[in-house]
Amino acid sequence: MNKLRFVLVGAGRAGMVHGQNLVHYIPEGDLKAVVDVDLKRAEETSASLGVKSFYSTLDEALEKEDCDAVCIASLTFTHREMIEKAAGAKKHIFCEKPLAQSLEEAEKIQEAVEKAGVKFQIGFMRRYDPGIRRAWEMVREGKIGDIVLIKSTGRGPGLPAPWIFDREKSGGMLAEVSSHDIDSVLWFVDKKPHHLHLEAKNFKGQEIREEFPDFYDHYVLTMSFVEGPLGMIDGGCPVGYAYDARIEILGTEGMIKVGETEARGPVLYTSDKKSWRDNQSSWRDRFREGYLEEMKSFIRSVLEDQNPSPSIIDGKRVVKVVELAHKSLGQQSPVLWEGEW
Amino acid sequence: MNKLRFVLVGAGRAGMVHGQNLVHYIPEGDLKAVVDVDLKRAEETSASLGVKSFYSTLDEALEKEDCDAVCIASLTFTHREMIEKAAGAKKHIFCEKPLAQSLEEAEKIQEAVEKAGVKFQIGFMRRYDPGIRRAWEMVREGKIGDIVLIKSTGRGPGLPAPWIFDREKSGGMLAEVSSHDIDSVLWFVDKKPHHLHLEAKNFKGQEIREEFPDFYDHYVLTMSFVEGPLGMIDGGCPVGYAYDARIEILGTEGMIKVGETEARGPVLYTSDKKSWRDNQSSWRDRFREGYLEEMKSFIRSVLEDQNPSPSIIDGKRVVKVVELAHKSLGQQSPVLWEGEW
Amino acid sequence: MNKLRFVLVGAGRAGMVHGQNLVHYIPEGDLKAVVDVDLKRAEETSASLGVKSFYSTLDEALEKEDCDAVCIASLTFTHREMIEKAAGAKKHIFCEKPLAQSLEEAEKIQEAVEKAGVKFQIGFMRRYDPGIRRAWEMVREGKIGDIVLIKSTGRGPGLPAPWIFDREKSGGMLAEVSSHDIDSVLWFVDKKPHHLHLEAKNFKGQEIREEFPDFYDHYVLTMSFVEGPLGMIDGGCPVGYAYDARIEILGTEGMIKVGETEARGPVLYTSDKKSWRDNQSSWRDRFREGYLEEMKSFIRSVLEDQNPSPSIIDGKRVVKVVELAHKSLGQQSPVLWEGEW
Amino acid sequence: MNKLRFVLVGAGRAGMVHGQNLVHYIPEGDLKAVVDVDLKRAEETSASLGVKSFYSTLDEALEKEDCDAVCIASLTFTHREMIEKAAGAKKHIFCEKPLAQSLEEAEKIQEAVEKAGVKFQIGFMRRYDPGIRRAWEMVREGKIGDIVLIKSTGRGPGLPAPWIFDREKSGGMLAEVSSHDIDSVLWFVDKKPHHLHLEAKNFKGQEIREEFPDFYDHYVLTMSFVEGPLGMIDGGCPVGYAYDARIEILGTEGMIKVGETEARGPVLYTSDKKSWRDNQSSWRDRFREGYLEEMKSFIRSVLEDQNPSPSIIDGKRVVKVVELAHKSLGQQSPVLWEGEW
Repeated sequence: MNKLRFVLVGAGRAGMVHGQNLVHYIPEGDLKAVVDVDLKRAEETSASLGVKSFYSTLDEALEKEDCDAVCIASLTFTHREMIEKAAGAKKHIFCEKPLAQSLEEAEKIQEAVEKAGVKFQIGFMRRYDPGIRRAWEMVREGKIGDIVLIKSTGRGPGLPAPWIFDREKSGGMLAEVSSHDIDSVLWFVDKKPHHLHLEAKNFKGQEIREEFPDFYDHYVLTMSFVEGPLGMIDGGCPVGYAYDARIEILGTEGMIKVGETEARGPVLYTSDKKSWRDNQSSWRDRFREGYLEEMKSFIRSVLEDQNPSPSIIDGKRVVKVVELAHKSLGQQSPVLWEGEW
Repeated sequence: MNKLRFVLVGAGRAGMVHGQNLVHYIPEGDLKAVVDVDLKRAEETSASLGVKSFYSTLDEALEKEDCDAVCIASLTFTHREMIEKAAGAKKHIFCEKPLAQSLEEAEKIQEAVEKAGVKFQIGFMRRYDPGIRRAWEMVREGKIGDIVLIKSTGRGPGLPAPWIFDREKSGGMLAEVSSHDIDSVLWFVDKKPHHLHLEAKNFKGQEIREEFPDFYDHYVLTMSFVEGPLGMIDGGCPVGYAYDARIEILGTEGMIKVGETEARGPVLYTSDKKSWRDNQSSWRDRFREGYLEEMKSFIRSVLEDQNPSPSIIDGKRVVKVVELAHKSLGQQSPVLWEGEW
Repeated sequence: MNKLRFVLVGAGRAGMVHGQNLVHYIPEGDLKAVVDVDLKRAEETSASLGVKSFYSTLDEALEKEDCDAVCIASLTFTHREMIEKAAGAKKHIFCEKPLAQSLEEAEKIQEAVEKAGVKFQIGFMRRYDPGIRRAWEMVREGKIGDIVLIKSTGRGPGLPAPWIFDREKSGGMLAEVSSHDIDSVLWFVDKKPHHLHLEAKNFKGQEIREEFPDFYDHYVLTMSFVEGPLGMIDGGCPVGYAYDARIEILGTEGMIKVGETEARGPVLYTSDKKSWRDNQSSWRDRFREGYLEEMKSFIRSVLEDQNPSPSIIDGKRVVKVVELAHKSLGQQSPVLWEGEW
Repeated sequence: MNKLRFVLVGAGRAGMVHGQNLVHYIPEGDLKAVVDVDLKRAEETSASLGVKSFYSTLDEALEKEDCDAVCIASLTFTHREMIEKAAGAKKHIFCEKPLAQSLEEAEKIQEAVEKAGVKFQIGFMRRYDPGIRRAWEMVREGKIGDIVLIKSTGRGPGLPAPWIFDREKSGGMLAEVSSHDIDSVLWFVDKKPHHLHLEAKNFKGQEIREEFPDFYDHYVLTMSFVEGPLGMIDGGCPVGYAYDARIEILGTEGMIKVGETEARGPVLYTSDKKSWRDNQSSWRDRFREGYLEEMKSFIRSVLEDQNPSPSIIDGKRVVKVVELAHKSLGQQSPVLWEGEW
């Protein structure tokens, strides 16, 4: 097996990123078919990618295509069904974040994957961003001593699709916008949270609240780890000005910042005595290398029979943080992390 | 009256900054005497500044010196006594932050000042930092719409003097290290907080807790404003790597960052393929211009009979935030701001 | 023809970059064989790339392999021979910079390519760097008016291989280190130089001068364009601290800077109150995307029967600048550009 | 003598900077009178500074005022006359750059000052800029080994006053705009130049050439030092976008950059996904601290009977570089530095 043959489920934005990488930048990936509930979109996407087959259901694709793996980039609330089908067919699975919209669903997913014994990787691509990975290594090398405080800021320029507003389907804005931030904090700290507390407000989505009264668009999540550091995550959208992803880690012996609001590129100096540059405009550009390398790593893991990383456990922990955070928001006070790490 | 004649109370670090500015950089200031409970320190300081007189009590200085104003940079828990004496002698007052160690003391101070009818300015010098002031103006000009989230980070390289560890005397680490951050958040938002919540931990000062069991050295303060934004302050010391003061203001139409961890100056590129620069090493360097301009402004206010700013009310609000935050820390849940703004 | 089948000539550093891109990142490229005069190196390189065939001569490879194109990354003084063979066999050609060690050779190369009617692209990958390309577009869009001055700095961390020291073989240090800078200046200005002047000194290579008396390691090239701007190029190696490539374009209405000495990545703040970051350490990292995209573009040009760019003319102009610059260095005064643009 | 009593000659832009510093920021300076050929301007300036006396000639001021020193900020071609008068009256002299419009004048000035035995400082304030001074110290400490190449860029946002266009009066644009850059290069290298070469063009001042045919507005000056580094200065105005002053020093062991086009201050991120900041807009802001500290240093030198620095020799060397550079421009080839260092 020299190439890994994929079916891609979900022809939305994240699906397109994975599809383009598999077709144009990863020789060892072989995209056989595109699945989308919207058959027309599946067809157009497969055409634009130069892929022959397209389907409206994963069942059909699994029946008709010889494939080794499924890349799941469909709506969050369909993840469980897609993963159960893929696992049932003994296909290896790459799944976009968040793993699920609730901890209960995440548990079911874990069961299905473990029972099938297939390989599974969750799409926390920031772990494959060279800068964030280097920061993580520096922490591991002891460059800043023990972590005292870790802050992650994650903001998107636009609003996500309307189905996201329904917390039952998406896990809510925290899950949609900040799953990567939560994973980063947990990955860097690598300890069990003691308690956490979410403050959230709705600044721009007044009309959204008419249908979804618990909708919020900006928030601050505070975490305290067992015998460990404090954590702060702030997130929100739409912020317009950038796709803004930054992490700051304060340790007993130093500090690390990684991530910049500005994109690399020219700086223009104009006659009004100002200088301007482009900001990071999209997660697609900002994490282009992360998306490419996470998929290459997943393929390598399967081809060489290694354990992919990040794992389903990593995916589940983030879902649990989101669920506890929403509980804290409801009761307007911190909540304890109960159960194991 | 062409020059304002000062008595300086407190020959510590902040006192030295004001003393040097009055002597070496502010022609319209005239420093007549230095007061310190440690008479030897008062003598040495006055000698180093080229000032003729020194005393161990403010009473004595007020009796013997012709002066117009008192600059108070003594220990926090002495502020009330010093201010009452100065006000009693009808001297104008410039007072270092924090105003007092408790809200009760702050109220008494306000009474004394108002009764005497003297001018009073609290030393929130960041309002005179050109960058922070420009950011504040940009917010007022509507450059970023309405504030959605404001974050202020304040960290000091070393530990403060041991008397600070006693919350009864100093108001605690939050008051000592983050009074400027709290003032900045309140100044930018200019609305009444709805509730606030302090998370704090002790990472480096284990032995300090033996004497002061409630001691903490790093913390995160979350604030929510009435019909307004969220606020986050994180602070701590000793962090070693810098005097680090940064503010970030997210609005409905844009974002502003102000303050940098690095100092201006040369960047050195070395053969190990690294580049390094000096960080901001001290509040004295970072806010050199702020300290100078706040004092020039105070002098101008007195000489031209204007109201100095920031006012005693600004000082009192910060004390109230500190007191509520400590209450929240004790009960491990958010507390409401009660009473007027 | 879905994929372009390549023979790679030259298994050195640049050859490896192209080989890895063709094998690991460009699905539409198909590397059939590696050629190197050192057969063992050819074998090792082909093995490490997972390529089946290797040869010690291009003749043999052309005879035995079905291929569409040749990627030439061999020593400069062999370019003419390799290009003539490839063109003779009607293969499309991608050739690394510099095109040749002398203008006379470059003319011969151009003849051979034009006679064969094959497609040819010279490896000025900076034109495919997103930042430099964006800067070039901004100039074309009129963002800074007319160019007044353009500066390009190019420095390498280490010394090139010893055969480079022989100007007869390599075109000299200016050709080796600054061909990209010269091309950038010509590409941005797009006008004929009026005269140019090279100042050069030898700071680190004293022992090299024993064998090559005209060796220099640092230099400044000044250019003046006909009814156009001034140009400055400074270059040199080994500088140790970075692979440093920066361009600055001053126009009548503004200024653009592009390229940074520092790499993107974490910033570490340490207890000595310093902050440090990694510099750009290698052209391979700095222009990773440029190398990838130039090759994808070349392949697309061939597959879609377009003219590749930059062209053989672009390659020849840079060789001419180098030759005139060396003449100017010899006579210690500026020399005129004679002949057409 | 506790304060140094000054007469200020020249109420233009540079004169105002010195006047304001002496009055508002330097307690040990005492400005007694303002002299300007335009008596009305002298009167307005003295009024705005709160200074009692004003005159249209230095003679009159010297006759009527008790003073210790003269600060000369009048037009370049008047420097010799003003310095001769001040020296004749045994007054210490602070003189703005450039020292003179020709080397011949500079020699006469030196004679007059040496004969009078008064203290003299030339206004190369960049030596008092904390960042540039720190860079110079780092070079002296051996942080980058021996200097290989030094580059200084100096550009002004607007055109200087029309009298500057007359090279006979001002020394020309190179003297006006780049005297500080030339001094910096000489100060860092501290060796005798071997030869130098000026390339200059006129991009914006077409109509100026009607009256002054040798007028140029942008230029590149290349220098080669005896057994030493290469130097490059580029300058010009009006560039609109900033007051831009940057130095880069490449050494055998590393590299230093100092000076930034952008001012410190807020960064604004806007909904078009751009970020902007203010550039350095004026030499007054950029070198505010340099202007203040050079004058404090001059006063200290006089009060404590030390030799002020930079000296008249430093001033003269810059005039010589300008004169040789113009010779090189005329003959379109490099010229040798003859005579001593």
